[in-house]
Amino acid sequence: MTEEYRHLLVKREGDTVTITMNRPDRRNALSADHLTELLAAFRAAGDTDATGIVLAAAGPVFSAGHDFADVAARDLLGVRELLTLCQEVMTTLESVPQVVIARVHGLATAAGCQLVASCDLAVAADTAGFALPGGKGGWFCHTPAVPVARSIGRKRLMEMALTGDVIDARTAVDWGLINYAVPAADLDTAVADLLARATRGSRASKALGKRTLYAQLDRPEADAYTLAREVMAAAAQLPGAREGMAAFLDKRPPTWTD
Amino acid sequence: MTEEYRHLLVKREGDTVTITMNRPDRRNALSADHLTELLAAFRAAGDTDATGIVLAAAGPVFSAGHDFADVAARDLLGVRELLTLCQEVMTTLESVPQVVIARVHGLATAAGCQLVASCDLAVAADTAGFALPGGKGGWFCHTPAVPVARSIGRKRLMEMALTGDVIDARTAVDWGLINYAVPAADLDTAVADLLARATRGSRASKALGKRTLYAQLDRPEADAYTLAREVMAAAAQLPGAREGMAAFLDKRPPTWTD
Amino acid sequence: MTEEYRHLLVKREGDTVTITMNRPDRRNALSADHLTELLAAFRAAGDTDATGIVLAAAGPVFSAGHDFADVAARDLLGVRELLTLCQEVMTTLESVPQVVIARVHGLATAAGCQLVASCDLAVAADTAGFALPGGKGGWFCHTPAVPVARSIGRKRLMEMALTGDVIDARTAVDWGLINYAVPAADLDTAVADLLARATRGSRASKALGKRTLYAQLDRPEADAYTLAREVMAAAAQLPGAREGMAAFLDKRPPTWTD
Repeated sequence: MTEEYRHLLVKREGDTVTITMNRPDRRNALSADHLTELLAAFRAAGDTDATGIVLAAAGPVFSAGHDFADVAARDLLGVRELLTLCQEVMTTLESVPQVVIARVHGLATAAGCQLVASCDLAVAADTAGFALPGGKGGWFCHTPAVPVARSIGRKRLMEMALTGDVIDARTAVDWGLINYAVPAADLDTAVADLLARATRGSRASKALGKRTLYAQLDRPEADAYTLAREVMAAAAQLPGAREGMAAFLDKRPPTWTD
Repeated sequence: MTEEYRHLLVKREGDTVTITMNRPDRRNALSADHLTELLAAFRAAGDTDATGIVLAAAGPVFSAGHDFADVAARDLLGVRELLTLCQEVMTTLESVPQVVIARVHGLATAAGCQLVASCDLAVAADTAGFALPGGKGGWFCHTPAVPVARSIGRKRLMEMALTGDVIDARTAVDWGLINYAVPAADLDTAVADLLARATRGSRASKALGKRTLYAQLDRPEADAYTLAREVMAAAAQLPGAREGMAAFLDKRPPTWTD
Repeated sequence: MTEEYRHLLVKREGDTVTITMNRPDRRNALSADHLTELLAAFRAAGDTDATGIVLAAAGPVFSAGHDFADVAARDLLGVRELLTLCQEVMTTLESVPQVVIARVHGLATAAGCQLVASCDLAVAADTAGFALPGGKGGWFCHTPAVPVARSIGRKRLMEMALTGDVIDARTAVDWGLINYAVPAADLDTAVADLLARATRGSRASKALGKRTLYAQLDRPEADAYTLAREVMAAAAQLPGAREGMAAFLDKRPPTWTD
């Protein structure tokens, strides 16, 4: 399954597809080629019947964000094209029907931090760190700040974005940027545990749920309710809801068919 | 005052109306009848001169959310009607002029958790728990996630909504879903204390304040300012503000007349 | 530099302008005159080549908010004019190109708390406190609640706005209203440290970054991305970004020219 990729390792085990960024010598920098492969891999995984996708990375760093060698060589339209591709990767993490979880073992900076913020869930090792390093002075992290702003409070966003300094994994949990920080030795177990809890049940029901969450999240409350109510009314007629309710009423474990 | 209700106990003591969900054998499930009574009770309390409303529950569970026996028997339009009624209850908690506080002694799940998220304030016993159990697989908690999303951070919302697992009261405080968690023996005292602090002063001023908070909350900042500024300018001419300022300038305790 | 102000002390040291509210006998109340001077001082500082602005205060209190003697004497249009001026001060904190940091040594209430919430960053002494005291009953803090609502969670906002009670500096950090709380003796060091980290690098890059953060913050995510992507593509061509990337690729420290 991975032979088609030069930057990634992709493997399927059970109901989970693991996509591992595998350019450790480039600190998994998000060059156009790397992003193109990530987009292809997420789309391919999205089309499978897997229920979860783990985004992981090989080498000492999770991802250092954009590849400056790539960016520096581009003119305005070229950078715009790169950022459009990057944004497409980020929004694909939100739009695939699977639950997407980041497995963050090391430093995640700039667009690498944006990747983590864009996953549905994130678990990090104590050794991980998170930063928007554009704040140190040069190319400000304008787009990475978009999903980070939607995960943490405003004063904390300002501190991350303006200072560019690294926050550790415990602080990232405290601020709500990630779900859990664990000792490095426990990282795989913690990722597997959270993903198992997040993917059980009807796959179709969960996929509809995830899509509706993102659709309602940053709308005004009244609009969010209108959307969520219409989806929920329709969802009550679908096999997942029918089986869930029937099993509950019959006091038996449910059997999911979709 | 309660004789008109089959699902609720309603009592008034001093300036507080307490509405207690009283179907312990049904885990205070939100059937159409139960919701209809809640809506009527909140509207009736809203029309009184009370300053605070406590939403409480009897029995081991605060509320288990929708009644699956009721939902399973309904077609698409029927479920839509039920959810519209449910949404009306939730938004009425926000629109009544009184301060509404949840007294959560046990498990609050699905639309039961939505009730807590929709109250202005919430205090829970250590023994309480909160969940969006549709995440376990069947009927996803689309609408309960609407007010929960507006109370807690995105990654935490995703964890609650996708896993369906229960978070305890201390975690709910940490995430901002509720205000306080206390030992069960101290629950009534803690609710009364917070409500007393939240209801003192001019009733008319507080009611206008609450309404404006919800109106400005999820607008863009510039729109929120425009609204809040117009309300605040007008409010400065009203008896509550006049008395508050006069008492401050005269160095005497205020006497509220509205 | 300060001789033109009656309410403020303004001094420039290195790259930092410090604006100190200096009406301790009036608890730095935000009268029309005081607000007019704040607006002028922030605009003047904004036009300098300074990289940071500290908002500080003299006397036992940071700021008590509006001056009730001033407000009580005004009719509807007069209060509206005062609030419009106040809002102009608050939004100017966001619109100046410098990083604005609040140095909060004492109580910051009502529009004084709004000032803190409107700064990009805030550091407080352990002895500071924060409140929206209109919640105690008279003139509700409608406009101060606008930036506070965008910094802390909804239930916490409701508690602050409805009770009017003071939260201490540690709680303010926990809720995300400020960045750090430190012993009073360490306040200046902590402010200087955070400001130094937040202002290093290209001034032009940071100013564009700050402006874009506020512009994207409360838009729907898709709109925020569109804006941030266009700005970031253009920014990659500017001297700050060019130098940042070149220095990184050359493995040398950057030299900022703008």
